[in-house]
Amino acid sequence: MRVLGIDCGGEYTGYGVVEMNSAGTLTCLKCGAIKLSPREPLARRLSRIYEGLGALIEEHRPDEVAIEGIFYALNVKSALKLGQVRGVAMLSAASAGLEVAEYSPLTIKASVVGYGRAEKQQVQHMVMRLLGLAELPEPMDASDALAIAICHLHTAGTQERQRVNTR
Amino acid sequence: MRVLGIDCGGEYTGYGVVEMNSAGTLTCLKCGAIKLSPREPLARRLSRIYEGLGALIEEHRPDEVAIEGIFYALNVKSALKLGQVRGVAMLSAASAGLEVAEYSPLTIKASVVGYGRAEKQQVQHMVMRLLGLAELPEPMDASDALAIAICHLHTAGTQERQRVNTR
Repeated sequence: MRVLGIDCGGEYTGYGVVEMNSAGTLTCLKCGAIKLSPREPLARRLSRIYEGLGALIEEHRPDEVAIEGIFYALNVKSALKLGQVRGVAMLSAASAGLEVAEYSPLTIKASVVGYGRAEKQQVQHMVMRLLGLAELPEPMDASDALAIAICHLHTAGTQERQRVNTR
Repeated sequence: MRVLGIDCGGEYTGYGVVEMNSAGTLTCLKCGAIKLSPREPLARRLSRIYEGLGALIEEHRPDEVAIEGIFYALNVKSALKLGQVRGVAMLSAASAGLEVAEYSPLTIKASVVGYGRAEKQQVQHMVMRLLGLAELPEPMDASDALAIAICHLHTAGTQERQRVNTR
Protein backbone atom coordinates (compact mmCIF):
# COMPACT_ATOMS: atom_id res chain seq x y z
CA MET A 1 0.00 0.00 0.00
CA ARG A 2 1.25 3.44 -0.95
CA VAL A 3 0.23 6.59 0.93
CA LEU A 4 0.73 10.29 0.28
CA GLY A 5 0.95 12.28 3.50
CA ILE A 6 0.33 16.01 3.30
CA ASP A 7 1.28 18.57 5.93
CA CYS A 8 -0.58 21.80 5.15
CA GLY A 9 0.90 25.13 6.10
CA GLY A 10 0.60 28.76 5.15
CA GLU A 11 4.11 29.02 3.72
CA TYR A 12 5.26 25.42 3.22
CA THR A 13 3.10 22.45 2.35
CA GLY A 14 5.05 19.27 3.07
CA TYR A 15 4.49 16.00 1.24
CA GLY A 16 5.77 12.47 1.61
CA VAL A 17 5.02 9.27 -0.31
CA VAL A 18 5.56 6.10 1.72
CA GLU A 19 5.08 2.50 0.66
CA MET A 20 4.56 -0.48 2.93
CA ASN A 21 5.22 -3.94 1.50
CA SER A 22 3.54 -7.16 2.63
CA ALA A 23 6.29 -7.72 5.21
CA GLY A 24 5.46 -4.34 6.79
CA THR A 25 8.68 -2.67 5.60
CA LEU A 26 8.33 1.05 4.97
CA THR A 27 10.04 2.86 2.08
CA CYS A 28 10.12 6.58 1.35
CA LEU A 29 9.53 7.14 -2.37
CA LYS A 30 9.55 10.91 -2.29
CA CYS A 31 9.40 13.79 0.16
CA GLY A 32 9.72 17.54 0.07
CA ALA A 33 7.76 20.75 0.45
CA ILE A 34 5.99 23.18 -1.86
CA LYS A 35 7.18 26.65 -0.88
CA LEU A 36 4.86 29.55 -1.54
CA SER A 37 5.84 33.17 -1.90
CA PRO A 38 3.65 35.47 0.20
CA ARG A 39 4.13 38.06 -2.54
CA GLU A 40 2.15 36.01 -5.05
CA PRO A 41 -1.64 36.46 -5.25
CA LEU A 42 -3.38 33.94 -3.00
CA ALA A 43 -5.34 32.35 -5.84
CA ARG A 44 -2.08 31.65 -7.70
CA ARG A 45 -0.47 30.20 -4.58
CA LEU A 46 -3.41 27.84 -4.15
CA SER A 47 -3.10 26.93 -7.81
CA ARG A 48 0.55 26.03 -7.27
CA ILE A 49 -0.34 23.67 -4.41
CA TYR A 50 -3.09 22.05 -6.46
CA GLU A 51 -0.81 21.53 -9.46
CA GLY A 52 2.14 20.42 -7.32
CA LEU A 53 0.15 17.80 -5.44
CA GLY A 54 -1.62 16.76 -8.64
CA ALA A 55 1.72 16.12 -10.37
CA LEU A 56 2.93 14.16 -7.35
CA ILE A 57 -0.18 11.95 -7.35
CA GLU A 58 0.14 11.49 -11.10
CA GLU A 59 3.78 10.39 -10.77
CA HIS A 60 3.62 8.23 -7.65
CA ARG A 61 0.03 6.92 -7.80
CA PRO A 62 -0.68 6.59 -4.08
CA ASP A 63 -3.59 4.37 -3.01
CA GLU A 64 -4.75 6.82 -0.37
CA VAL A 65 -4.01 10.24 1.03
CA ALA A 66 -3.57 11.21 4.69
CA ILE A 67 -3.69 14.67 6.16
CA GLU A 68 -3.38 16.21 9.61
CA GLY A 69 -6.66 17.20 11.21
CA ILE A 70 -6.71 20.60 12.85
CA PHE A 71 -7.78 20.15 16.41
CA TYR A 72 -5.51 22.54 18.27
CA ALA A 73 -6.40 26.14 18.98
CA LEU A 74 -5.38 28.56 16.28
CA ASN A 75 -6.59 32.08 15.86
CA VAL A 76 -9.32 32.82 13.33
CA LYS A 77 -6.98 34.39 10.80
CA SER A 78 -4.52 31.49 10.69
CA ALA A 79 -7.38 28.96 10.72
CA LEU A 80 -8.83 30.65 7.64
CA LYS A 81 -5.44 30.64 5.85
CA LEU A 82 -4.76 27.05 6.76
CA GLY A 83 -8.30 26.10 5.73
CA GLN A 84 -7.73 27.52 2.26
CA VAL A 85 -4.60 25.40 1.74
CA ARG A 86 -6.28 22.37 3.29
CA GLY A 87 -9.32 22.64 1.06
CA VAL A 88 -7.11 22.68 -2.03
CA ALA A 89 -4.97 19.78 -0.76
CA MET A 90 -8.07 17.65 -0.15
CA LEU A 91 -9.39 18.61 -3.56
CA SER A 92 -6.15 17.33 -5.17
CA ALA A 93 -6.87 13.93 -3.66
CA ALA A 94 -10.57 13.98 -4.57
CA SER A 95 -9.78 15.02 -8.16
CA ALA A 96 -7.65 11.89 -8.48
CA GLY A 97 -10.46 9.78 -6.98
CA LEU A 98 -8.51 9.13 -3.77
CA GLU A 99 -9.89 8.86 -0.26
CA VAL A 100 -8.56 11.23 2.38
CA ALA A 101 -7.95 10.07 5.95
CA GLU A 102 -7.42 12.54 8.74
CA TYR A 103 -5.42 12.15 11.94
CA SER A 104 -4.92 14.31 15.00
CA PRO A 105 -1.36 15.49 15.79
CA LEU A 106 -1.55 13.33 18.93
CA THR A 107 -2.42 10.19 16.96
CA ILE A 108 0.36 10.88 14.45
CA LYS A 109 3.02 11.30 17.14
CA ALA A 110 1.78 8.30 19.09
CA SER A 111 1.86 6.18 15.95
CA VAL A 112 5.40 7.19 14.97
CA VAL A 113 7.17 7.77 18.30
CA GLY A 114 4.86 5.81 20.60
CA TYR A 115 4.19 8.93 22.63
CA GLY A 116 1.57 11.56 21.71
CA ARG A 117 3.41 14.50 23.25
CA ALA A 118 6.72 13.83 21.50
CA GLU A 119 8.85 16.76 20.31
CA LYS A 120 9.07 17.58 16.61
CA GLN A 121 12.74 16.49 16.56
CA GLN A 122 11.88 13.10 18.07
CA VAL A 123 9.31 12.60 15.32
CA GLN A 124 11.90 13.54 12.69
CA HIS A 125 14.42 11.02 14.09
CA MET A 126 11.86 8.24 14.25
CA VAL A 127 10.72 8.97 10.69
CA MET A 128 14.36 8.64 9.55
CA ARG A 129 14.77 5.33 11.40
CA LEU A 130 11.43 3.83 10.34
CA LEU A 131 12.13 4.65 6.69
CA GLY A 132 15.80 3.64 6.87
CA LEU A 133 16.95 7.04 5.59
CA ALA A 134 20.62 8.01 5.63
CA GLU A 135 19.79 11.49 6.92
CA LEU A 136 17.01 13.50 8.54
CA PRO A 137 14.20 14.32 6.12
CA GLU A 138 14.25 18.08 5.49
CA PRO A 139 12.52 20.48 5.74
CA MET A 140 10.53 19.71 8.88
CA ASP A 141 7.32 19.96 6.82
CA ALA A 142 8.47 17.03 4.66
CA SER A 143 9.28 15.02 7.78
CA ASP A 144 5.83 15.83 9.22
CA ALA A 145 4.18 14.71 5.98
CA LEU A 146 6.10 11.40 6.10
CA ALA A 147 4.96 10.95 9.72
CA ILE A 148 1.33 11.42 8.61
CA ALA A 149 1.77 8.82 5.86
CA ILE A 150 3.40 6.37 8.30
CA CYS A 151 0.58 6.96 10.79
CA HIS A 152 -1.96 6.09 8.12
CA LEU A 153 -0.08 2.95 7.09
CA HIS A 154 0.14 1.89 10.74
CA THR A 155 -3.47 2.52 11.54
CA ALA A 156 -5.29 2.06 8.22
CA GLY A 157 -8.16 -0.33 8.67
CA THR A 158 -8.22 0.05 12.43
CA GLN A 159 -10.66 1.92 14.59
CA GLU A 160 -8.20 4.76 14.99
CA ARG A 161 -8.72 5.70 11.38
CA GLN A 162 -10.86 8.73 11.14
CA ARG A 163 -12.49 9.37 7.83
CA VAL A 164 -13.01 12.99 7.00
CA ASN A 165 -16.73 12.35 6.43
CA THR A 166 -17.27 11.47 10.06
CA ARG A 167 -16.32 14.95 11.18
CA MET B 1 -17.65 43.47 -18.33
CA ARG B 2 -18.92 40.22 -16.87
CA VAL B 3 -18.29 39.22 -13.26
CA LEU B 4 -18.87 36.05 -11.30
CA GLY B 5 -19.63 36.75 -7.63
CA ILE B 6 -19.14 33.89 -5.17
CA ASP B 7 -20.54 33.73 -1.66
CA CYS B 8 -18.74 30.94 0.19
CA GLY B 9 -20.50 29.05 2.94
CA GLY B 10 -20.26 25.75 4.77
CA GLU B 11 -23.54 24.40 3.43
CA TYR B 12 -24.45 26.65 0.50
CA THR B 13 -22.06 28.37 -1.87
CA GLY B 14 -23.92 31.07 -3.76
CA TYR B 15 -22.98 32.29 -7.21
CA GLY B 16 -24.15 35.04 -9.50
CA VAL B 17 -23.00 36.12 -12.95
CA VAL B 18 -23.66 39.81 -13.71
CA GLU B 19 -22.88 41.77 -16.84
CA MET B 20 -22.57 45.54 -17.14
CA ASN B 21 -22.88 47.06 -20.62
CA SER B 22 -21.21 50.28 -21.75
CA ALA B 23 -24.27 52.28 -20.59
CA GLY B 24 -23.80 50.90 -17.08
CA THR B 25 -26.90 48.70 -17.22
CA LEU B 26 -26.62 45.54 -15.11
CA THR B 27 -28.01 42.17 -16.20
CA CYS B 28 -28.15 38.93 -14.23
CA LEU B 29 -27.09 36.06 -16.47
CA LYS B 30 -27.30 33.34 -13.86
CA CYS B 31 -27.60 32.88 -10.13
CA GLY B 32 -28.08 30.05 -7.70
CA ALA B 33 -26.32 28.07 -5.00
CA ILE B 34 -24.39 24.84 -4.80
CA LYS B 35 -25.86 22.87 -1.91
CA LEU B 36 -23.63 20.42 -0.13
CA SER B 37 -24.74 17.48 1.93
CA PRO B 38 -22.95 17.31 5.30
CA ARG B 39 -23.19 13.52 4.98
CA GLU B 40 -20.79 13.46 2.03
CA PRO B 41 -17.03 13.22 2.67
CA LEU B 42 -15.49 16.69 2.85
CA ALA B 43 -13.12 16.04 -0.05
CA ARG B 44 -16.05 15.13 -2.28
CA ARG B 45 -17.98 18.21 -1.21
CA LEU B 46 -15.01 20.39 -2.11
CA SER B 47 -14.80 18.58 -5.42
CA ARG B 48 -18.44 19.40 -6.10
CA ILE B 49 -17.81 23.11 -5.52
CA TYR B 50 -14.74 23.07 -7.75
CA GLU B 51 -16.57 21.30 -10.56
CA GLY B 52 -19.72 23.39 -10.13
CA LEU B 53 -17.87 26.70 -10.28
CA GLY B 54 -15.64 25.41 -13.07
CA ALA B 55 -18.69 24.52 -15.20
CA LEU B 56 -20.20 27.93 -14.48
CA ILE B 57 -17.02 29.72 -15.57
CA GLU B 58 -16.82 27.51 -18.66
CA GLU B 59 -20.41 28.34 -19.62
CA HIS B 60 -20.58 32.04 -18.79
CA ARG B 61 -16.95 33.10 -19.34
CA PRO B 62 -16.73 35.91 -16.75
CA ASP B 63 -13.89 38.43 -17.11
CA GLU B 64 -13.21 38.48 -13.39
CA VAL B 65 -14.28 36.85 -10.16
CA ALA B 66 -15.25 38.59 -6.91
CA ILE B 67 -15.48 37.04 -3.48
CA GLU B 68 -16.33 38.23 0.00
CA GLY B 69 -13.34 38.77 2.25
CA ILE B 70 -13.63 37.38 5.75
CA PHE B 71 -13.02 40.18 8.16
CA TYR B 72 -15.60 39.54 10.84
CA ALA B 73 -15.00 37.44 13.92
CA LEU B 74 -15.71 33.78 13.45
CA ASN B 75 -14.63 30.98 15.69
CA VAL B 76 -11.64 28.87 14.71
CA LYS B 77 -13.72 25.88 13.63
CA SER B 78 -16.00 27.81 11.29
CA ALA B 79 -13.04 29.84 9.95
CA LEU B 80 -11.31 26.59 9.04
CA LYS B 81 -14.41 25.20 7.31
CA LEU B 82 -15.04 28.43 5.45
CA GLY B 83 -11.36 28.62 4.51
CA GLN B 84 -11.56 25.19 2.88
CA VAL B 85 -14.48 26.23 0.68
CA ARG B 86 -12.89 29.59 -0.02
CA GLY B 87 -9.59 28.05 -1.08
CA VAL B 88 -11.36 25.82 -3.58
CA ALA B 89 -13.52 28.70 -4.89
CA MET B 90 -10.41 30.83 -5.48
CA LEU B 91 -8.71 27.89 -7.16
CA SER B 92 -11.65 27.57 -9.59
CA ALA B 93 -10.98 31.13 -10.70
CA ALA B 94 -7.20 30.68 -10.84
CA SER B 95 -7.54 27.45 -12.86
CA ALA B 96 -9.47 29.43 -15.48
CA GLY B 97 -6.79 32.14 -15.46
CA LEU B 98 -9.12 34.68 -13.81
CA GLU B 99 -8.20 37.34 -11.27
CA VAL B 100 -9.99 37.29 -7.93
CA ALA B 101 -11.03 40.53 -6.22
CA GLU B 102 -12.04 40.57 -2.59
CA TYR B 103 -14.44 42.91 -0.79
CA SER B 104 -15.44 43.34 2.81
CA PRO B 105 -19.12 42.81 3.73
CA LEU B 106 -19.27 46.52 4.58
CA THR B 107 -18.00 47.56 1.14
CA ILE B 108 -20.45 45.20 -0.58
CA LYS B 109 -23.45 46.54 1.31
CA ALA B 110 -22.37 50.15 0.87
CA SER B 111 -21.93 49.58 -2.86
CA VAL B 112 -25.33 47.95 -3.33
CA VAL B 113 -27.56 49.68 -0.77
CA GLY B 114 -25.51 52.82 -0.12
CA TYR B 115 -25.24 51.92 3.55
CA GLY B 116 -22.65 49.52 5.00
CA ARG B 117 -24.82 48.31 7.87
CA ALA B 118 -27.82 47.42 5.71
CA GLU B 119 -29.91 44.34 6.56
CA LYS B 120 -29.67 41.22 4.40
CA GLN B 121 -33.25 41.77 3.17
CA GLN B 122 -32.44 45.34 2.07
CA VAL B 123 -29.50 43.98 0.07
CA GLN B 124 -31.75 41.37 -1.52
CA HIS B 125 -34.33 44.02 -2.54
CA MET B 126 -31.69 46.33 -4.00
CA VAL B 127 -30.12 43.45 -5.93
CA MET B 128 -33.55 42.71 -7.43
CA ARG B 129 -34.06 46.37 -8.39
CA LEU B 130 -30.56 46.95 -9.74
CA LEU B 131 -30.78 43.85 -11.93
CA GLY B 132 -34.42 44.50 -12.95
CA LEU B 133 -35.50 41.07 -11.74
CA ALA B 134 -39.18 40.15 -11.53
CA GLU B 135 -38.68 38.52 -8.13
CA LEU B 136 -36.25 38.31 -5.24
CA PRO B 137 -33.16 36.23 -6.07
CA GLU B 138 -33.30 33.05 -4.00
CA PRO B 139 -31.74 31.54 -1.95
CA MET B 140 -30.16 34.35 0.07
CA ASP B 141 -26.70 32.96 -0.85
CA ALA B 142 -27.44 33.59 -4.55
CA SER B 143 -28.56 37.12 -3.75
CA ASP B 144 -25.37 37.71 -1.72
CA ALA B 145 -23.27 36.44 -4.61
CA LEU B 146 -25.02 38.84 -7.01
CA ALA B 147 -24.35 41.68 -4.55
CA ILE B 148 -20.64 40.79 -4.56
CA ALA B 149 -20.59 40.82 -8.38
CA ILE B 150 -22.42 44.19 -8.47
CA CYS B 151 -19.99 45.59 -5.91
CA HIS B 152 -17.07 44.57 -8.11
CA LEU B 153 -18.66 46.08 -11.23
CA HIS B 154 -19.32 49.32 -9.32
CA THR B 155 -15.87 49.61 -7.85
CA ALA B 156 -13.59 47.78 -10.32
CA GLY B 157 -10.73 50.01 -11.29
CA THR B 158 -11.18 52.30 -8.32
CA GLN B 159 -9.15 52.57 -5.19
CA GLU B 160 -11.75 50.57 -3.32
CA ARG B 161 -10.78 47.51 -5.25
CA GLN B 162 -8.78 45.19 -3.09
CA ARG B 163 -6.77 42.56 -4.82
CA VAL B 164 -6.26 39.39 -2.92
CA ASN B 165 -2.49 39.69 -3.33
CA THR B 166 -2.41 42.85 -1.24
CA ARG B 167 -3.62 40.98 1.81
